[in-house]
Order: sequence, then C-alpha cells, then structure tokens
Amino acid sequence: MSSIDRIPNIEILGDAVPFVGRIREIIEAIHLFEDFEPEELTGLARFMRCFRAPLGTEIIREGDTGDFMVLLLDGNVEIVKKDVRGGAQIMGNAGPGKTLGEMSLIDGEPRFASCVALDSVTFAVLDRESLSRLIAEEPHIGVKLMMELLMLLNQRLRSVSSQLLDCMEARRSRIR
Amino acid sequence: MSSIDRIPNIEILGDAVPFVGRIREIIEAIHLFEDFEPEELTGLARFMRCFRAPLGTEIIREGDTGDFMVLLLDGNVEIVKKDVRGGAQIMGNAGPGKTLGEMSLIDGEPRFASCVALDSVTFAVLDRESLSRLIAEEPHIGVKLMMELLMLLNQRLRSVSSQLLDCMEARRSRIR
Repeated sequence: MSSIDRIPNIEILGDAVPFVGRIREIIEAIHLFEDFEPEELTGLARFMRCFRAPLGTEIIREGDTGDFMVLLLDGNVEIVKKDVRGGAQIMGNAGPGKTLGEMSLIDGEPRFASCVALDSVTFAVLDRESLSRLIAEEPHIGVKLMMELLMLLNQRLRSVSSQLLDCMEARRSRIR
Repeated sequence: MSSIDRIPNIEILGDAVPFVGRIREIIEAIHLFEDFEPEELTGLARFMRCFRAPLGTEIIREGDTGDFMVLLLDGNVEIVKKDVRGGAQIMGNAGPGKTLGEMSLIDGEPRFASCVALDSVTFAVLDRESLSRLIAEEPHIGVKLMMELLMLLNQRLRSVSSQLLDCMEARRSRIR
C-alpha cells in the first residue's frame, strides 16, 4: 500500500491504461515523455493508477513521507508551502500535464510543499513499488522514464538556481 | 570525441579502472554510489576516463555546450558564475567526491557555471556517449547510476529551493 491510498475522499479509477488516450494528448501538448513510443506509453500506464479527487483535497501534504508522483490529467492544483511564521505561501498552480512529487518518489524525504485540488482533479500515480517493478520487468521503459525524470529535475534546478541568483543579486543591490 | 577532449593543458590518464581504489575510498567517505557492489563500481569505471589538470584550468566553462560530468578524485575546484554586470561571482568550492556538470550531461544545455582548478586536480569523466553505452551494455549498472544522479539532483533541488525561499522571505521582511 502506497501513501496515496491513505488520502480521504479520493476515488480510485484503476490502472492508467484506459487513460492512455488522455495521457497521449497531454504529452503531445507539453513535450513530456516525447521519446516514448505509443506501446511504451501503454506499458508505462500499466504501472500507474488513476484517481479522482474533489475540490479542496490535499493530494500531497508538506512534511509527509511520500512515495509517489502524480501526473495531472484534468483539473488544477495549488502548490502551497508554510512560511517561517506558519502562514501559507502560494508557490504557484499546476494543471494538466504537470508532474508533482517526483522528489519524494525518488528519495523518500518529506514532501517539500502541499498540493491542493482547486477543482475536481483526475491524476495518474506512480509509486515507488511500481517504479521498482517497472525497472525490473520493463527495463527499457524504466530507463526512459528515469531519463525523463532527470530532464525534469534538471530543468527545475536550472530555473530555481536562476531565481536564487536573481534574488541574491536584488538583495545585494538593495544593501548597497 | 567529447567536449572534455577540447580542454587545453589536460593530461589524459586513460580509463578509470586503475582509479577504482581511490573511487572506492571516496565513495566510502561521502555515501555516493553506496548501493554499488565492488564489481559494479569496476564496471562503471570501465566507462569513465581519468584526467589531470593543472592549477587554473577551466575544467567546465559557463555557457559551453557540455556533454560530460566530472567526479573529483584529488584536488579542489572553485565554482564561478558571471553576474549581471559580467563580474565573476564565486558560488563555492568542491573537493574530492564531488560531482560536477551532471545537468549538461543529461540535457545538453549550456553549462550553468564554470569550474576552475584551485590546484592540480585529478578527476574521472563520464560523457554522454559512454552513458548511452553503459545503459545499453550494462543496464543494471546504468539504472543504478541514473538513480544516483536522480538522488543527487533531488538533494540539490531541495537545497536550492530552501535557499530561494529564505532569500525571498528576507527580501519581503526588508520591504515591509
């Protein structure tokens, strides 16, 4: 049992194979998984499960030990992080095609931020146990998925690093 | 030919197999590649090449298209990034056991910062062509290496994201 199965109010839609059409639409729009052949995508979908969550559901909760990542298929979420005074800081929104929670899928560290459904949200989940099975049973697809995750983390690291440099630069010019 | 082969003043030491002892020492100290069995490490070393560079060598140059990552074996480098006014901003140092340049190895995007040798530096290199061969010829080791890289990028992303939040928080309290 993955930690996704402990979220209240969530509707289990079964494995992701029936959603492959929607996943393919999304992929064409956002260039995620674009190296995947259609049959590889179906192979991957067999290792994912789909869920639907109503407005307000905390799909991912900051600080929780999480062992799954989410691919948003329909609907939007708000990404929220507690600030030093315990208030909630909105870090952004995410919609169809965005992936959430890859970091904890990989390292099992506590969730960095929360993701809250802004409307009814449908999403596909890959948990750590399924990722291990995927790599063991379909190594070719497993390697492609890991390469996608590496690209994704890379892009994010480049973007956050640039933002950090800008912020530090802005602080310096203010201090001067 | 990888872009590593275009750096002047660099001494080619051959494949990394003779350095496996040193690599193992480093790994034990820093918990990198700790999931690797000794024979897997030797397998990986067959796909890496070792180099030595004198003080002042720019092993990685900001903005270059790079296709390799570096594992530092001996010596230290300074990580430098140009700021908006074209000055050089020192982002930190790195010593034995640190890896450099994984981001460009993976996505081929321009180097984010430069790495300059602070003394005589010995390092092992994995380039993209070797990574592809590793995954094709030794998929088991390839998957483990990709998982290590995912963990590494993850840790860095968590650390940079926290620094960014702190910086934004400091700017906000200054503005208030």
